[in-house]
Amino acid sequence: MEPSRSETDIDEALAESFPASDPPSWTLGEEHAIRDTRGATMAIAKAEATWTGTLKEGAGTMKGSSRFLEGPYTYRSRFEGDGGGTNPEELIGAAHAGCFSMFLAAQLTTAGFPPARIHTTATVHLEAGPTIARIELVTEADVPGIDDQTFQEKVEASKRGCPVSKALAAVPSITVSARRV
Amino acid sequence: MEPSRSETDIDEALAESFPASDPPSWTLGEEHAIRDTRGATMAIAKAEATWTGTLKEGAGTMKGSSRFLEGPYTYRSRFEGDGGGTNPEELIGAAHAGCFSMFLAAQLTTAGFPPARIHTTATVHLEAGPTIARIELVTEADVPGIDDQTFQEKVEASKRGCPVSKALAAVPSITVSARRV
Repeated sequence: MEPSRSETDIDEALAESFPASDPPSWTLGEEHAIRDTRGATMAIAKAEATWTGTLKEGAGTMKGSSRFLEGPYTYRSRFEGDGGGTNPEELIGAAHAGCFSMFLAAQLTTAGFPPARIHTTATVHLEAGPTIARIELVTEADVPGIDDQTFQEKVEASKRGCPVSKALAAVPSITVSARRV
Repeated sequence: MEPSRSETDIDEALAESFPASDPPSWTLGEEHAIRDTRGATMAIAKAEATWTGTLKEGAGTMKGSSRFLEGPYTYRSRFEGDGGGTNPEELIGAAHAGCFSMFLAAQLTTAGFPPARIHTTATVHLEAGPTIARIELVTEADVPGIDDQTFQEKVEASKRGCPVSKALAAVPSITVSARRV
C-alpha cells in the first residue's frame, strides 16, 4: 500500500522527533522499514502472563519486564467490575492514552509549540464476540501560544500516526476528542 | 464480511465460557453484536495518561482505573532501555499475553481439558515508522490429559479469537509458539 500524503507528512515530522536507527530507517521508505526488521528495530519490550485453572474459577497475573507493571486479573475483574484486579483492556487503554499523549507532545514540539501538559483518558469497550469494539480518547492539553487549527491538526495526526493507534487499527471505532485548556 | 466456519466454531465455544449479555448477543450474529453497542456491552475499562513537556526532556505517567497499574514513562524508558520506567509496548505485550492465556484457558476448559497452568511471554517489536511491527507470544501450558492436536487447535483458535489479538490484527506479524509442559 502506498502511503498517503498525510502519512508522509507524519513520517517527516517524526524524523526530527523520534529516534533513528543507523541509517535512519524512514529514509528508506515504509515498505523497507517493515521488511528489514533487523535494521529498523527501535525498541523491544517484554511482558508475560500466567493463568492457572479454568476461566471462571481460575486467576492470573500480567507482568511487564520493568518493575512498574504487575497486576492480578480474574474473570470477575475483567467482566464484572471487581476492583480486586486489573484486566487486559485496562492495559490497552493505558497504552493507547500514553502513546497518543507522547506522540502528540512530539508533534507539537516539532511544530514549534512544546506542550506544558497533556492529559488523556481512554475508555475501552469490550462487546459481544468478545470484541474490543470502541476506544474513546479524551484529551486536555495546555499548549502555550498554539492556534486551534494547528492543535487539531496535530491531534488528528497523532490519532492516525501513533504506534499504538496503528496497531489497534482493526478496532471498529476509535474516537479522539481534544481541547486546549 | 461473513464469518468463516472456524470463527463460528469459536463463537460457539465462547457461548459456554464467556459471559453473556441479556439476551446473549452472540445469538444475534456478529453484525448485530457490533452494531447494537448498548445491548452487547460486556465490560468497560478506563485508563489515563499524563505527559508534561517535550518528547525528549518530558516525562509521563500511565495509569489504570484499578489500583494495580501506574507507571512512569519517558523517551529513555521507551526507546533506550532505561529500566526506570515502563512504556506503551510493555503494556500492549502484557495485555496480549494476559488475554491470550485467559482465552486459551476458556477454550481448553470448554473442550474438556481444564488447564492447570498457562504461562505466556510476549515480545513486542517497535520498528521504524514508528510501528509495532511484530508481536511474538511463547506459551508453555500444563494441560492434563490433552493430545497435542487438540491443544494446538485451541492455541490457534485463541491466537485468532482472543479480543486483544483481534484488536491488534493490523500488526504485520503476530506469532504464537506453544508447547505442553
